[in-house]
Amino acid sequence: MNSFGRIFRISIFGESHGESVGIVIDGCPAGLSLAVEDFLPDLERRKGGTQKGTTPRQEEDIPIFKSGIFNNRTTGAPITLLFENKNIRSSDYEKQRDVPRPGHADFVARKKFGGNEDYRGSGHFSGRLTVALVAAGIIAKKLLGHAPTSPQTPSQGGEIKISSSILEIGAEKDLEKGLQKAVDAKDSIGGIIECRVNGLPVGLGEPFFDSAESLLGHIVFAIPAVRGIEFGTGFAAAKMFGSQHNDAIENMQGKTRTNHAGGIVGGLTNGNELVFRIAIKPTSSTPKEQTTLNWETEKVEKVSVKGRHDLCIALRVPVILEAVTAIILADLMLMEQKIKRVLT
Amino acid sequence: MNSFGRIFRISIFGESHGESVGIVIDGCPAGLSLAVEDFLPDLERRKGGTQKGTTPRQEEDIPIFKSGIFNNRTTGAPITLLFENKNIRSSDYEKQRDVPRPGHADFVARKKFGGNEDYRGSGHFSGRLTVALVAAGIIAKKLLGHAPTSPQTPSQGGEIKISSSILEIGAEKDLEKGLQKAVDAKDSIGGIIECRVNGLPVGLGEPFFDSAESLLGHIVFAIPAVRGIEFGTGFAAAKMFGSQHNDAIENMQGKTRTNHAGGIVGGLTNGNELVFRIAIKPTSSTPKEQTTLNWETEKVEKVSVKGRHDLCIALRVPVILEAVTAIILADLMLMEQKIKRVLT
Amino acid sequence: MNSFGRIFRISIFGESHGESVGIVIDGCPAGLSLAVEDFLPDLERRKGGTQKGTTPRQEEDIPIFKSGIFNNRTTGAPITLLFENKNIRSSDYEKQRDVPRPGHADFVARKKFGGNEDYRGSGHFSGRLTVALVAAGIIAKKLLGHAPTSPQTPSQGGEIKISSSILEIGAEKDLEKGLQKAVDAKDSIGGIIECRVNGLPVGLGEPFFDSAESLLGHIVFAIPAVRGIEFGTGFAAAKMFGSQHNDAIENMQGKTRTNHAGGIVGGLTNGNELVFRIAIKPTSSTPKEQTTLNWETEKVEKVSVKGRHDLCIALRVPVILEAVTAIILADLMLMEQKIKRVLT
Amino acid sequence: MNSFGRIFRISIFGESHGESVGIVIDGCPAGLSLAVEDFLPDLERRKGGTQKGTTPRQEEDIPIFKSGIFNNRTTGAPITLLFENKNIRSSDYEKQRDVPRPGHADFVARKKFGGNEDYRGSGHFSGRLTVALVAAGIIAKKLLGHAPTSPQTPSQGGEIKISSSILEIGAEKDLEKGLQKAVDAKDSIGGIIECRVNGLPVGLGEPFFDSAESLLGHIVFAIPAVRGIEFGTGFAAAKMFGSQHNDAIENMQGKTRTNHAGGIVGGLTNGNELVFRIAIKPTSSTPKEQTTLNWETEKVEKVSVKGRHDLCIALRVPVILEAVTAIILADLMLMEQKIKRVLT
Repeated sequence: MNSFGRIFRISIFGESHGESVGIVIDGCPAGLSLAVEDFLPDLERRKGGTQKGTTPRQEEDIPIFKSGIFNNRTTGAPITLLFENKNIRSSDYEKQRDVPRPGHADFVARKKFGGNEDYRGSGHFSGRLTVALVAAGIIAKKLLGHAPTSPQTPSQGGEIKISSSILEIGAEKDLEKGLQKAVDAKDSIGGIIECRVNGLPVGLGEPFFDSAESLLGHIVFAIPAVRGIEFGTGFAAAKMFGSQHNDAIENMQGKTRTNHAGGIVGGLTNGNELVFRIAIKPTSSTPKEQTTLNWETEKVEKVSVKGRHDLCIALRVPVILEAVTAIILADLMLMEQKIKRVLT
Repeated sequence: MNSFGRIFRISIFGESHGESVGIVIDGCPAGLSLAVEDFLPDLERRKGGTQKGTTPRQEEDIPIFKSGIFNNRTTGAPITLLFENKNIRSSDYEKQRDVPRPGHADFVARKKFGGNEDYRGSGHFSGRLTVALVAAGIIAKKLLGHAPTSPQTPSQGGEIKISSSILEIGAEKDLEKGLQKAVDAKDSIGGIIECRVNGLPVGLGEPFFDSAESLLGHIVFAIPAVRGIEFGTGFAAAKMFGSQHNDAIENMQGKTRTNHAGGIVGGLTNGNELVFRIAIKPTSSTPKEQTTLNWETEKVEKVSVKGRHDLCIALRVPVILEAVTAIILADLMLMEQKIKRVLT
Repeated sequence: MNSFGRIFRISIFGESHGESVGIVIDGCPAGLSLAVEDFLPDLERRKGGTQKGTTPRQEEDIPIFKSGIFNNRTTGAPITLLFENKNIRSSDYEKQRDVPRPGHADFVARKKFGGNEDYRGSGHFSGRLTVALVAAGIIAKKLLGHAPTSPQTPSQGGEIKISSSILEIGAEKDLEKGLQKAVDAKDSIGGIIECRVNGLPVGLGEPFFDSAESLLGHIVFAIPAVRGIEFGTGFAAAKMFGSQHNDAIENMQGKTRTNHAGGIVGGLTNGNELVFRIAIKPTSSTPKEQTTLNWETEKVEKVSVKGRHDLCIALRVPVILEAVTAIILADLMLMEQKIKRVLT
Repeated sequence: MNSFGRIFRISIFGESHGESVGIVIDGCPAGLSLAVEDFLPDLERRKGGTQKGTTPRQEEDIPIFKSGIFNNRTTGAPITLLFENKNIRSSDYEKQRDVPRPGHADFVARKKFGGNEDYRGSGHFSGRLTVALVAAGIIAKKLLGHAPTSPQTPSQGGEIKISSSILEIGAEKDLEKGLQKAVDAKDSIGGIIECRVNGLPVGLGEPFFDSAESLLGHIVFAIPAVRGIEFGTGFAAAKMFGSQHNDAIENMQGKTRTNHAGGIVGGLTNGNELVFRIAIKPTSSTPKEQTTLNWETEKVEKVSVKGRHDLCIALRVPVILEAVTAIILADLMLMEQKIKRVLT
């Protein structure tokens, strides 16, 4: 349940206000060079506190290598990365114990786990765990760098390159304006993120249930606040004619004239740019006063959500989306034997 | 890869123009009554050939019980259901071998499997396999009928009820008109399908990777032609403020005033109606002439896709969407021990 | 539960007196040539009825290809093989419904499945299902033939070769004598089977839980009647000193002077001959009268087990043991990327 | 590969001379009380250094709770337990880098992982990791204490009780004498361990591949130094007649007059005492001088294995065997819904 992947397999753990969050990565090929410095740029991109609209909670986010790395290389044994939680103000949450915050997992988690859940800052349901996803994603990205560049990858001369960006915030393509809407409204706001991958070979993905879209869809919905995913033309495809939507194949590497398919046909990558988008809901912890049920009194009451939060969680999602995408692709590349189990 | 599920686990097999398609269902509780008649209504809903816009290919679609059923009850051993392919005209496809049809898996499958794939009528990538999904879905639906109705299920007095419908065809909410657009244009067309489930308990879904959305997202993209999925307000959530989007909890069963979340919070069902939509692309096999690459000559040429096809594959998807939804929910209910392993 | 394997993954189904038994094989590389004739020699070895001490039940045991094979080659899609049950005399068993046969699963299956189990001839618990294992094993053996021969495989010049034989029957190394003991005593009898594999590369097996012994141990106990497994010196190792037991490495291919380890060290193959033995209990269906409990009267009574049975089931096990061994090794070779996913 | 289990699922990591070893336990029901003190007795039993014949290496072995435990109860989220390695003398091993120790994984690991493996003290292949198994086993044992006692469990009035003991050392049933043989010979020595479980319900285990023996066999061979496993009469069964071996059922709870089956029939527990034995080879690190190959010179040379080792590793195995047995049984009890997912 907290694990995912077939060969490159991750197991995530931890809570927002517990001692730590972390991840175990099994099946990573031996011989991949890894140093703390490799992790810092992406971890920095994920961090809140430096942009308008992100949480003032500041964690150092230095990965602690607990296993699987020796002499700065992966050993082939499971890699464990730990992130300590230091900058914690749990008292904010303990007061709110009986007032489940709207939009959060508080209520459902209490029902599911019979009140045993760590409720502080959403506990295991917190976005805090995405730091571990980003870390695993960095390893996956490095692995993808070991894939052979080949004529099979028409889109960009070979090297696999993943990049995500914010398409809009609060219906605004001008992100600054979108964010200002939220600031002005003293409210949180949602956004749309796009991910593009170039340099993929033809044929990643497994019929029937492990299609490339299935695996990406699966892992993307593990990111908190994701409400939808679409590939290529996505929902717009539902309004199109077949003759408009179909992409004409133009050469033996599979290059198509258009890319409505977003790089996946029949569940398999087709060698064109992989393109998909996800919808991020507005941060549940809005500064606005809301109503909810008090678990003890069983009465509806007003609640102002305390704690330190992002006004627009979408701002932090691009690097997380790249990470989970890299994780899926690394696993599929291993399945296709396009990354070796010992790197040299 | 061709299997899915943790306890209620399905393994699919078969090809469009092979001898048969079928499914093995492992982990189904013993004691569920099952007769061929149980399968007919949903199989009939899935069938083409009776509606404008669906394929004239007609299969009988009578499930053959090969294992796991004895004296009209499930035994607890794996259930195997087989559907024979009788109404086959493979010659249509053999001529097209070297002309990969745009929008189909022909090209990528040939690359991935080195030319060994069964290319007739998309082979293992065919929508024909969804007959097996529908069959497994019928068993899953029957299982869900054995879940206890409880005060925890506020939405509809208990009984779990899944229903899917077409929201629009070709951007038209009037389905008849949408379909007529395609007929007039002599082209295929896409559509949007919605699924709603009532009567679910609070707490289905497993953090972190087996959230309810993750599992539904995973299986939904196994259905051919799906290009996107969104839960509750979905992509529209990205344009909303948090105070608009959050659903206020109103009673101890978790009922919320609004249902923007679509019945899932923190990856867990929250006891409200589960609501999600999927986008279906226009059938790849459009009657319109298109261009593609000839595998042998390596030149682009014109192609008219022969064979018997649906003008609007979306017409046949609702029952398939119900089926895969039921499959996921049955597995999650077993995980939560809300369905017993021996039914009485 | 009824599936096993990571890449080369099998799902078994069927009952002794149901319509059929069969197996779905997922993850088999594309391009492997396969014809019915490939299956006949091993299926013949498994069959009862031709040797003294085996059952007079005669099935044709011709595999029916239901999916995954096209133009006599594997396609990369799941392979389904079916064996029909024709030579059935279920009436033998129906009379015995309330008298669980000692040593058989009758009693425990009835408890576990609440009386819904197919009880005829042990149903899903029958040795009849091993026909499907043998069939999957044949495919696995053919796959192993596609592994590169290499200097890494010191033991036999490269080619992987699996062979099993009976070491003793009823404590007798002279098998004929051992069997005669049973005939004379009008009783069933057990035996010991050994499996040897040559030509394996160094390094098959995955730490921690997927050691070569773990995977072999797992699958071997799926064969009915197996009561123990030991590798190399096995139980005798418990009586030895370390200096006696350790095998001295003699060359860079890992060849050792002795082979007490049986070809596995640290859970990984070491390039020497893989050697292990399993213990087979006497057939539970002995001709001797026994006592058991009557489920209806709840009283102990005498029972004579009717039906057609093997006096010494061990006689039929060697080919089954080879099959499951091949299945595990094929999966491990795929994990190590020593067999390609498309064969040429 | 480093994970095991279906619902109660463990992922192990770490190296002998790395920073730590640990385990992530997913799927543990919420509400189980857990304190450091619960772990100490079994961890103490596993520890070397206090008995004749065990290693002088002394680790504190206090589990550090990293996730999944809150207010002394399991939360339902993954539990992470860490054991720090403090008492390390890696220099012993670094000198031996090019001299693979006979009987150890040194040679095969270097081949498999291309020289990237952590070779210090066997790295990830070390018996040190069993501390994490014991810790997970303690949680599993506590879970089993939450199973209902029932008339279905004839063997001991209900409560599930697991106990392992050493049957013999160096072919001696007098353990003291067996150990003295090794001390006198200045050599290491093997032994046989038995495990007995009382209070199990009828029906644990899943056909076909997840039989109770298959799962136990799988996990038992993950314990370093295990060379064989047998259930009930085990290898002796191969020498018996069926009428001798079969256990006559005597009452409706499944109690049998004899217990040659060792409590498992048809892969399912039958309500009688579960009995099985494993063979432990002599510690590979014998004080005796041996010959091996030098990786650099490619010549055979003499080697004296330095480091701190157990003369008889079997002495430390009973508590590990109990642990892995408890892990399997907890998972099977959850599969059978005999342990709830939220404990109260």
